[in-house]
Amino acid sequence: MKHITSPHNAIIRHAEQLQRKSKVRKKEGLFMVEGQREVMLCHKGGFILEQLLVCGPILLDTNDFTAQEVYSKIGLNSSPEVISVTQEVYEKLAYRTGTEGVIAFAKAKSQQLQDLKLSKNPLILIAESPEKPGNLGAILRTADAAKVDAVVIANPVADLFNPNVVRSSVGCVFTVPTATGTTAELIAFLRSKNIHLYAATLQSSERYDKMDYTTATAIALGTEATGLSQEMRDAAVQNIIIPMSGAIDSMNLSVSAAILIFEAKRQRDFK
Amino acid sequence: MKHITSPHNAIIRHAEQLQRKSKVRKKEGLFMVEGQREVMLCHKGGFILEQLLVCGPILLDTNDFTAQEVYSKIGLNSSPEVISVTQEVYEKLAYRTGTEGVIAFAKAKSQQLQDLKLSKNPLILIAESPEKPGNLGAILRTADAAKVDAVVIANPVADLFNPNVVRSSVGCVFTVPTATGTTAELIAFLRSKNIHLYAATLQSSERYDKMDYTTATAIALGTEATGLSQEMRDAAVQNIIIPMSGAIDSMNLSVSAAILIFEAKRQRDFK
Repeated sequence: MKHITSPHNAIIRHAEQLQRKSKVRKKEGLFMVEGQREVMLCHKGGFILEQLLVCGPILLDTNDFTAQEVYSKIGLNSSPEVISVTQEVYEKLAYRTGTEGVIAFAKAKSQQLQDLKLSKNPLILIAESPEKPGNLGAILRTADAAKVDAVVIANPVADLFNPNVVRSSVGCVFTVPTATGTTAELIAFLRSKNIHLYAATLQSSERYDKMDYTTATAIALGTEATGLSQEMRDAAVQNIIIPMSGAIDSMNLSVSAAILIFEAKRQRDFK
Repeated sequence: MKHITSPHNAIIRHAEQLQRKSKVRKKEGLFMVEGQREVMLCHKGGFILEQLLVCGPILLDTNDFTAQEVYSKIGLNSSPEVISVTQEVYEKLAYRTGTEGVIAFAKAKSQQLQDLKLSKNPLILIAESPEKPGNLGAILRTADAAKVDAVVIANPVADLFNPNVVRSSVGCVFTVPTATGTTAELIAFLRSKNIHLYAATLQSSERYDKMDYTTATAIALGTEATGLSQEMRDAAVQNIIIPMSGAIDSMNLSVSAAILIFEAKRQRDFK
């Protein structure tokens, strides 16, 4: 087993580049995953793990371990290369110091709309140009609980495999089917599949709970700052609004998404 | 107008103590509020502002200003003492550097259950021992949008006027009626008012959307880690659950709160 003791090692520098730079992730089709549960969910979600960086004393309470022990501990039935790293090296890469002990290099999958596998009566959540990784992560966590058919990021500004998205989704970025595309591509896709688009917006909108989401449905939310694009609103069968009656006239994006998606789930009797 | 140029000034040191220490806030019945909207909402919410620390160049684009200009800019119709501070002093206290220019000393209000003013058919949100200020802030933001009668913190571990709660609630901690008490006090209070308690929990629970929240209702949520206390669950007319069908078996606390509260609002036709 390879053992890395220097934070300046080329593999570690490569890992840092993948953590920090969206461009590098995109160019190489690789990203980093930290944490036992996250690595397990990434594997379960069908992503290929290329290498695991393991800090033995943290993950397995010992410096003396085999790759097989690592796979068992995390619950993997693939066998990516395991590289042992010192605590110093691990902590250089890790966001959560000293609690997990494993960071993986994983291969990105296709994010093409055409590759989505939808059920007969799909429920899709669309986030248009979400800016805050924390919000996107929270949306993915809710989407996992609701078991939507897919989360689609229209006109993405950040990539899904940003470490903050992975972290705030608690790994749900791997368990929820995802796709990205331009708003125009997405609208064409929904039309081709006869999926009704509901746009969460303030303009000429009806109460969200007055709509019927029991047929093929996509619900779209824009950014907290600027909302949905005109293009998306025009393509909707209906603009919808969550009535608010407080001192503040906005809700957190992931909270709004949860209210809308769970209303659809309720109407579908959680089937 | 007083002018403070030293970060070591006694008033600034006092402000720092109030920001950092729950004990000091409790003992003195004072807390700090940062930001124009937050200070305005604090004032609107009926809290007494004792002093304003103002960085002229940030708030008013000038070092030469009157107290009246500060009140107008923020939208206050009270007249607390205004103290001018240098940018260096301001940035020592501020979380968001250089964007707001005002930090207030405010007086805490009663958090007694008995002082809550409830409508005839109240809807109350209960958070038992919430640990993360960010979650509590997010719950308060949702509670504001839903215009619930009150948010009650049962067995609080942190205080409501923690700067992270104020910040993550975007000031809604001031616009939503709040109270705190032990779980036992809260249960007695709900009984005395004939308010039905629904406990969000996994044990012997029914689907949340099968319940009727149109009469006097309180919905209680526990911590993400340990859920609600046995005491709270035993006192409930019904334990309720949000069905989840993903890879992860938990949702964010504020997201769960939003789904439950907006189902109640929906049943009440948003009246």
